[in-house]
Amino acid sequence: MQKNCYVYETNTVEGEDVNRQGTRINAVMAEIQSRIAARTYLPGARLPSVRAQARAMQVSVSTVVEAYERLAAGGIIASRPGSGFYVEGPVAPLTLTQIGLRLDREIDPLWVSRQSLETDASTLKPGCGWLPAAWLYEAGMRRALRTLARADTFELAEYATPLGHPTLRQLLSRRLANTGIEAGPEQIMLTDSGTQAIDLICRFLLEPGDVVLVDDPCYFNFHALLKAHRVQVVGVPYTSRGPDVEQFAAALREHSPRLYITNSGIHNPTGATLSPVIAHRLLKLADQSDLVIVEDDIFADFETHPAPRLAAFDGLSRVIHIGSFSKTISASLRCGYIATRTHWIENLVDLKIATSFGGGRLAAEMMLIALTDSGYRKHMETLRRRLAEQMVRTIAHLKAIGIEPWTVPQAGLFLWCRLPEGMDAAVIARSCLKDGVVLAPGNAFSQSLSARDFLRFNVAQSTDDRVFSVLKRALSEQGA
Amino acid sequence: MQKNCYVYETNTVEGEDVNRQGTRINAVMAEIQSRIAARTYLPGARLPSVRAQARAMQVSVSTVVEAYERLAAGGIIASRPGSGFYVEGPVAPLTLTQIGLRLDREIDPLWVSRQSLETDASTLKPGCGWLPAAWLYEAGMRRALRTLARADTFELAEYATPLGHPTLRQLLSRRLANTGIEAGPEQIMLTDSGTQAIDLICRFLLEPGDVVLVDDPCYFNFHALLKAHRVQVVGVPYTSRGPDVEQFAAALREHSPRLYITNSGIHNPTGATLSPVIAHRLLKLADQSDLVIVEDDIFADFETHPAPRLAAFDGLSRVIHIGSFSKTISASLRCGYIATRTHWIENLVDLKIATSFGGGRLAAEMMLIALTDSGYRKHMETLRRRLAEQMVRTIAHLKAIGIEPWTVPQAGLFLWCRLPEGMDAAVIARSCLKDGVVLAPGNAFSQSLSARDFLRFNVAQSTDDRVFSVLKRALSEQGA
Repeated sequence: MQKNCYVYETNTVEGEDVNRQGTRINAVMAEIQSRIAARTYLPGARLPSVRAQARAMQVSVSTVVEAYERLAAGGIIASRPGSGFYVEGPVAPLTLTQIGLRLDREIDPLWVSRQSLETDASTLKPGCGWLPAAWLYEAGMRRALRTLARADTFELAEYATPLGHPTLRQLLSRRLANTGIEAGPEQIMLTDSGTQAIDLICRFLLEPGDVVLVDDPCYFNFHALLKAHRVQVVGVPYTSRGPDVEQFAAALREHSPRLYITNSGIHNPTGATLSPVIAHRLLKLADQSDLVIVEDDIFADFETHPAPRLAAFDGLSRVIHIGSFSKTISASLRCGYIATRTHWIENLVDLKIATSFGGGRLAAEMMLIALTDSGYRKHMETLRRRLAEQMVRTIAHLKAIGIEPWTVPQAGLFLWCRLPEGMDAAVIARSCLKDGVVLAPGNAFSQSLSARDFLRFNVAQSTDDRVFSVLKRALSEQGA
Repeated sequence: MQKNCYVYETNTVEGEDVNRQGTRINAVMAEIQSRIAARTYLPGARLPSVRAQARAMQVSVSTVVEAYERLAAGGIIASRPGSGFYVEGPVAPLTLTQIGLRLDREIDPLWVSRQSLETDASTLKPGCGWLPAAWLYEAGMRRALRTLARADTFELAEYATPLGHPTLRQLLSRRLANTGIEAGPEQIMLTDSGTQAIDLICRFLLEPGDVVLVDDPCYFNFHALLKAHRVQVVGVPYTSRGPDVEQFAAALREHSPRLYITNSGIHNPTGATLSPVIAHRLLKLADQSDLVIVEDDIFADFETHPAPRLAAFDGLSRVIHIGSFSKTISASLRCGYIATRTHWIENLVDLKIATSFGGGRLAAEMMLIALTDSGYRKHMETLRRRLAEQMVRTIAHLKAIGIEPWTVPQAGLFLWCRLPEGMDAAVIARSCLKDGVVLAPGNAFSQSLSARDFLRFNVAQSTDDRVFSVLKRALSEQGA
């Protein structure tokens, strides 16, 4: 399988001066990277020894040594003392390592996620995408656990049915009807999470190389997820009333995307809400170019005044609606759902069984108990009030240190904020991390990397004033 | 995007006699299927009207009508009255519909899974792959639920850390050491299930078109999962002591596979155990051809005498070890794991976060409580004794109606059985389903479809004698 392509063929200069050796090192590096990409060298495989490689590529041993060292420094290969060099990961689009080659670590979507997931309770996480544990529906969870401790054997032990818990799907159908979305229980499939919902849809609809539109900025894990599907991601600038319709139309003409993934209700990271006019225009454009839209509605229950849903206007014809309970009930027990047209549901069920063998019964049962007990409505009322208060408080704190909200959200947890002139959010984030404060720099959300001077704040994770004092110090160090 | 390829180009005959129209109908069908495969017609898209298609393809309207009707009957497209015809699913390898074009429904891996998942408690499921709910660790689950109802807020509400529950990973590390597998907690990543574990590994290591070896027969969901990854599956005949080594070597030479997926401990569906000699030969062959092996060990706790583990011999160098608790504790709360070399774990964590945003804390916490309470060891002792008794009983019942076990397993729940001469397991399965008995026909497990006269029995799901009376009647109807 080895390609008959020696470095000297692409680099025919003679002699060993520094420039020429530099060219040869680059050529060896490029050749090895292309063999890794072509899977001639598989992930985890040992590379040929330095001597063997030098012989095969007809270059000096020192050229190969230097090329291997540089590839190891870039995380492409790894050195194991006494054993040689090994290929680090799989083909380019899949790994953090390789995303990391292009992006600063601070704005790498996976790195930002891992920082939030990894840190201990003593770390402050204003950059985190979810509520503090104590703000979630703890009482409901405890009640559901106690109820389930007395449940049928079946509930405690069995796999879920292919579509998932029938009563929870009925409840979801009624809840969707409240936002104008008509979806029978047979059009709803439960998943392990909102992320798994999007992943299954991508598996169903996308081929490697397809184009997918996202908002710029958008939820950063959309970038990581879409990279795993090896599709081309095109960002459309997001305004305070939804995506820029002219640019959306231009992206459709230019790229013929298969899919557009967006948030309905409250937009992540901006906190903006879609206007009905823009919703209609988007759907008209989608119709004209046979675009499928995934509407991720995980922040629905935070709304005080319901924004328009694309799925409601469209009747689930080309809009796929997804949601989960991680943001309002608990992220410790995962449960999400997909609402879409019936014949797509069938294919999605097959994919779910093939790739995760359905799910269990317990998570859905707990969510059902938590959603239907009398306390959930009250929990959400308290939560919305608390978030609104904390939103006002956070805006005031940020303004005092020169950070301005891009828009003032109607509800939810996010504030998308511009830093003072000339500041780099990635640099600020790196500095604050040393003091135990995890931030979310704008470019982690921006496909075009045009949000260098933005940060996303989670108002519920910004209750400790140390967030602002640490931030203030980092800003002044950068000269603000 | 429409290809300039008209049917008349591939079918230049003139006239309208029946044969010729038949040829044209086939050509129209083939062209439409190829456009669906090429995604010129996207899943869910409306096909051109009959008239427009007839004009474009330069054939008669009746030819298009007939082609559309036949495609609709085959599930490739769907008719919606008053609205036209729509493309049913995505590209070939992904959907049940299209697997169904090649296989009888009764031996379709997804159909067999769905039958087991979908049926109610009144159905008998000797073909099912797991224990009845009442045989699982109900007492442990109830105790874990009660314990968790008093747990920290954090456990009840938060996402898991990227690798998953540290204490559970420590316990798994010690459990693996008992079977000779050295894996530190940092080499173990928790997943939502054993299936998700394999899926993540496939995402990490495979490209569409790669070749993957499986045992023939093997666990049928491997077929469905690998189809979703669009890889080429090659089966290696399985003997009562492991895969046929000669044929394994031949498959390596001929196909250069990337991966081999197998069960260690107790093999599904045959109940056979790998011999140490074959294990060593496999690993030697794998070394020579740089093959990665996934060893799925979900039946480990059913063993009475531990069989060799490939991961123990290999030191997790090229063997990836996976497991879960669905078969012994509960399938209602999903939790699995991957043990592999450290630098692969890092990439798998990224993929897990990107595609499912990690997991929750609760499932791992419950598994930990269940595994460490004093009852688990006793639960497994009882379970092994019960299975052994039921194994003897099932063999006797089956022999009485002329069905012979291919091998008598040392332990576990499966019996791989040969039907009397000339019987077709798919026909028997169809007949028994009418009487409420779900069977697992051999060819659902066989890549080469060479197990037409085999059935897999789950002895724990064969306690009701009606299984055997229904089976006897079906056999006699087929002339046994």
